[in-house]
Amino acid sequence: MGAFAIRPDKKALTLYPFPADLVNNRIREVLSGQNDEISRIIDYLLAGSGKMLRPRLVFLSASLYPHEPHLVTDMAVVVELIHLASLVHDDVIDQSDCRRGRGSLNSCFGNQTSILTGDYLFATAFKLINYHSQQKILDNLTSTIQTMCAGEIKQMQLAFDIEISEEEYLEKSYGKTACLFASCCKIGALSCSMPDAEADALEEFGLCLGYAYQIIDDLLDFMSDRTKLGKPCGSDLREGNITLPVIYLLRDLSYGPWLQTVIAERAFDAANITAITEALIKNGAIDACLQLTYNFITRGLERLDKLPAGPARKEIMDMGKFLLENYYRSLRTDIITVEREMSSS
Amino acid sequence: MGAFAIRPDKKALTLYPFPADLVNNRIREVLSGQNDEISRIIDYLLAGSGKMLRPRLVFLSASLYPHEPHLVTDMAVVVELIHLASLVHDDVIDQSDCRRGRGSLNSCFGNQTSILTGDYLFATAFKLINYHSQQKILDNLTSTIQTMCAGEIKQMQLAFDIEISEEEYLEKSYGKTACLFASCCKIGALSCSMPDAEADALEEFGLCLGYAYQIIDDLLDFMSDRTKLGKPCGSDLREGNITLPVIYLLRDLSYGPWLQTVIAERAFDAANITAITEALIKNGAIDACLQLTYNFITRGLERLDKLPAGPARKEIMDMGKFLLENYYRSLRTDIITVEREMSSS
Repeated sequence: MGAFAIRPDKKALTLYPFPADLVNNRIREVLSGQNDEISRIIDYLLAGSGKMLRPRLVFLSASLYPHEPHLVTDMAVVVELIHLASLVHDDVIDQSDCRRGRGSLNSCFGNQTSILTGDYLFATAFKLINYHSQQKILDNLTSTIQTMCAGEIKQMQLAFDIEISEEEYLEKSYGKTACLFASCCKIGALSCSMPDAEADALEEFGLCLGYAYQIIDDLLDFMSDRTKLGKPCGSDLREGNITLPVIYLLRDLSYGPWLQTVIAERAFDAANITAITEALIKNGAIDACLQLTYNFITRGLERLDKLPAGPARKEIMDMGKFLLENYYRSLRTDIITVEREMSSS
Repeated sequence: MGAFAIRPDKKALTLYPFPADLVNNRIREVLSGQNDEISRIIDYLLAGSGKMLRPRLVFLSASLYPHEPHLVTDMAVVVELIHLASLVHDDVIDQSDCRRGRGSLNSCFGNQTSILTGDYLFATAFKLINYHSQQKILDNLTSTIQTMCAGEIKQMQLAFDIEISEEEYLEKSYGKTACLFASCCKIGALSCSMPDAEADALEEFGLCLGYAYQIIDDLLDFMSDRTKLGKPCGSDLREGNITLPVIYLLRDLSYGPWLQTVIAERAFDAANITAITEALIKNGAIDACLQLTYNFITRGLERLDKLPAGPARKEIMDMGKFLLENYYRSLRTDIITVEREMSSS
């Protein structure tokens, strides 16, 4: 795990100036005014609020150059609305009954309401960008949504496909996560007076961060438990989503053929999921994934060299490092737990 | 049925200059370029192309004043994309396996693909409006979508509610149909150099046309057969959607109590649906619905007085009359069929 050597400044970790309450209140504000039922749904949705990574990226990116605070807040709101809409629709698509450690919207309000709520969130997001006359942002974000949807449709054909390559996995991660992370940075850049070349560099940082985030997320699906992650362990594999650690394990001469059989027979009982998790550690698939994560972060951070030095840039760098450090710590605890169970059995 | 006395000019019926092929080709064009799977889905979706009422309204409205043809074509494309997106999502919501006389998108490609395709269509529509820098149109259409979604969410609570009033029915019809019809007229008006007062009048015409259209559509759900309508007879009632003819029949002293029991017991077998259809004719519910349709059309046509006289205005008037005439003819054939079956049994 030496690959994961970037360490953030301890002090910076506690110093995010991100105004989460301001953004959440504004989300409530822009979504309200239709009827009581919508308000009830939105309350439920926002009570399970996540890490708000995407709005954070907008804020930090915009803080690099002079900007209009109201515009930046609203653009942070916009990316969170789009993210929420895609989560709500994804949970219907995946028939998930769990999200962020509690019942998903579809499990509480039904699929119908979830689909309509997602559409309502999309429409509200576009309305808000339009209100601020941000044509470039609207163009960027609609392209991103097209990419997300088209990518997800294409990738559904790859479900349970054990022939999937690392390149196809990255293509999948691009549509699923990285393109929206990149958009968030670009939208932040477009919300301030940042020169084009720097905006492009920041967008690439977002892209790298997104890839890294997705790999860590895919690892956590095996390593973390239901309580922490808010969904059952190994659920990606159960849904046919062949992620990077699994791709690496499939290539392994001793584990590969066994794993192929497990996938072909859809034999995803708890014993097999545990066996896969242990194999991922023994075979080095986890290490290989962390190495790639590290490479992405390093590449992303290099892009930030083009940005003006100062506290804002430092904070963006720390954000990338913090995210991964945080996940790394969580993963390490999980790995120790699994290793302890392995040696005691 | 004398209420339905408006008769369009026979010649005008065949003289719509609406360029359906141009609009369809442009829809294909704006949706293409992502990947083969998306193209395959779009081909399927467009092969079942409907009457294109909404793009027609945009064209006719814009033709009243000087306009830029490319803009008008694209705005017609936009409203059809929004309509298609909402149909695709509605079919997932209603679990419909039939649309426009053939398999619905969800029945052929699955719910997942349908939800994502709907999102893709929404994003593409907003991208296209933004491309033309039409801020007012974007604002109008996002409000309309918010209204449609919030309305549908609210109305789901009214499913199987036999206490629903005529007013609540109209509120439901507003969200479901009338607000998008009104938007189409307004978008056409905003795509040309029409003065505000006339744009408002045209929007009201669209609203009235939408209400009338929805009532006729609800009648056809009982009167028409599966082949014509592309969905099973009485399917609204089966889904708990209490429409205007049913509201009228529920109020009838002889049929009301019986119908209440049928609904309470969800006893929607073919015999009962036929019995309801016959009761709607005998009791005069059909006539009452047609009377209201006529009133809406008349009110809508009166609004058009404010528009400059000439061939464009005449065509819009004829469009309203034609639509209803067309449906009326279809309904009359159905009524004769039902009456014949009633007298022979």
